Amino acid sequence: MGESKKQVGVLGLGRMGAALAGAFLGAGHDVVVWNRSPLKAGPLLDRGARLAATPAEAASADVVVSCLSTYDTQQPVLEAASLSGRTLVNLTSGTPEQARVAAKWAASAGVDYVDGVIMAVPQGIGTPSARILYSGSEAAFGAQRAVLEVLGEPMFLGADAGLAALYDLALLGMMWSAMGGYLHALALVGSEGVTPEQFTPMALEWHSAVGGFLSGIGAQVASGDYETDVSALDINAAGLAMLVETSRAQGIGTTIPAALRELFDRAVAAGHGTHAIASVIEEIR
Amino acid sequence: MGESKKQVGVLGLGRMGAALAGAFLGAGHDVVVWNRSPLKAGPLLDRGARLAATPAEAASADVVVSCLSTYDTQQPVLEAASLSGRTLVNLTSGTPEQARVAAKWAASAGVDYVDGVIMAVPQGIGTPSARILYSGSEAAFGAQRAVLEVLGEPMFLGADAGLAALYDLALLGMMWSAMGGYLHALALVGSEGVTPEQFTPMALEWHSAVGGFLSGIGAQVASGDYETDVSALDINAAGLAMLVETSRAQGIGTTIPAALRELFDRAVAAGHGTHAIASVIEEIR
Ligand SMILES: NC(=O)c1ccc[n+]([C@@H]2O[C@H](COP(=O)([O-])OP(=O)(O)OC[C@H]3O[C@@H](n4cnc5c(N)ncnc54)[C@H](OP(=O)(O)O)[C@@H]3O)[C@@H](O)[C@H]2O)c1
Ligand SMILES: NC(=O)c1ccc[n+]([C@@H]2O[C@H](COP(=O)([O-])OP(=O)(O)OC[C@H]3O[C@@H](n4cnc5c(N)ncnc54)[C@H](OP(=O)(O)O)[C@@H]3O)[C@@H](O)[C@H]2O)c1
Repeated sequence: MGESKKQVGVLGLGRMGAALAGAFLGAGHDVVVWNRSPLKAGPLLDRGARLAATPAEAASADVVVSCLSTYDTQQPVLEAASLSGRTLVNLTSGTPEQARVAAKWAASAGVDYVDGVIMAVPQGIGTPSARILYSGSEAAFGAQRAVLEVLGEPMFLGADAGLAALYDLALLGMMWSAMGGYLHALALVGSEGVTPEQFTPMALEWHSAVGGFLSGIGAQVASGDYETDVSALDINAAGLAMLVETSRAQGIGTTIPAALRELFDRAVAAGHGTHAIASVIEEIR
Repeated sequence: MGESKKQVGVLGLGRMGAALAGAFLGAGHDVVVWNRSPLKAGPLLDRGARLAATPAEAASADVVVSCLSTYDTQQPVLEAASLSGRTLVNLTSGTPEQARVAAKWAASAGVDYVDGVIMAVPQGIGTPSARILYSGSEAAFGAQRAVLEVLGEPMFLGADAGLAALYDLALLGMMWSAMGGYLHALALVGSEGVTPEQFTPMALEWHSAVGGFLSGIGAQVASGDYETDVSALDINAAGLAMLVETSRAQGIGTTIPAALRELFDRAVAAGHGTHAIASVIEEIR
């Protein structure tokens, strides 16, 4: 590290905060940590971190990273930290609106504010597969970029502090949809005795293939041209009806396919039956 | 091809049936085709296919492949085809129940029956990425395997003729969920002026990362052990609530995230709040 060694403060040592502090330590930085329950700092102190008795003590660093459960639990901690003149990188998850309110508070308190969202699990922090998205002050982000790179691959989205949270919710929505679809599939094949071990290899292969379909959908949404020589919406809506009926016949729940069916049917009713699946976005926005 | 050249009959020349017949021709087989609207056969006749005037004429082949829009439109065609003593590979999509009814009819008519589902678009037929799942008569499948391999990578699932259709609906459900999640994400970021071109590279990277999470979920479903040191269901349910609220605040629809939220909330209410997301399957089945 040499001359690039920095003082890094970490507020919050939950599953994610502890992983962040560990990655900073691993990169040779001088790390000072604070957590409501100080006992959680133990393993980090063994690795050379210093324990701050108050948030303000952890804030006497070049850059302060916060990661608490919610914005509501975080705000009193930030106010107690006296961050004026410092850079705050807020990695607590929330809505775009909450991020913008925090950015306004930071501006009024003389704090350089960067909002970030972590598209990874704690176990992935510090590996190249951990993607972290940032928005807010580009100058502050640029100044701390080298420090932040030890957490995972950074991407800066823009000056609107709410952008990272917007991407976060959009991407997490994709994840919850995909996980819900997979769990429904497991329940469906499971109703005929097919085990997750038997089904999952095919499911993973198919998940990859579906990834290949998404960019085509994105291009159609971008152009607004929904012509298709692949597969029309009405055939897919009919397929969803079969999925709902078969799920019911097999005695499992229908919440997820029934919602998709309702959405696809609305798009068909709006005249998109012969269009591509991409046209469903007209019913969402 | 030499001695492995076979007579293949194809019933149905829609988008998919035409792609199937084209792949058989490309592999050097002797292909005889039938379609309700014979004009669609033109490009295939140019490539050496023979046109059957009736389904029965196309059925005088070693193996007959059918691909019409639905089982209901297909059944009269099959009955007109006099398939006794032949092998029928039915690639029309339907429910497991429809496949089983067709298998029973085939048994009563002296027809060797294989049911298949195509996990690919017509443009993918004949490429290694085209996966085709089969169930029903294993002997008939084995005898025709070499012929069927020209369409795409075959996988035989079992003797229950309904299994291929069961996998089909389960996998298509995953696809519709993932596409719905992606379209919702596009609408959400689009509400702040982010274009599909800007968002899609991150979305595709994240879709791959999510694929990595699915096998962990499958293992937890298999074991019934929902302990987690990654991310608890209640945090994800809270995230879904944020997604629903933010979608509403941005003026877009909430059908998909609201359904997922309802399902996750039910699982939390059933006592799975501190468990992994995999525990949601208990609310589906
Ligand atoms: N885990 C993941 O996979 C993941 C992935 C991406 C993003 N995130 C985000 O990262 C953030 C932290 O998640 P996590 O997994 O680390 O959660 P966690 O393990 O539950 O940790 C929560 C943290 O918040 C603190 N906290 C809660 N209420 C507090 C209060 N009233 N006052 C002061 N501190 C309080 C906790 O302190 P105590 O130790 O004293 O309880 C702890 O440091 C969340 O916004 C989460 O959405 C997590
Ligand atoms: N396209 C895909 O991406 C895809 C992927 C996987 C599976 N599949 C499945 O493959 C099957 C065919 O799909 P496709 O895309 O080829 O559909 P398509 O292009 O709409 O073709 C439908 C076929 O069914 C025939 N047909 C419809 N009604 C008929 C009737 N009453 N009597 C006789 N023939 C009738 C049509 O004949 P005419 O030409 O005379 O109208 C045509 O051959 C469907 O079950 C579909 O779910 C399709």
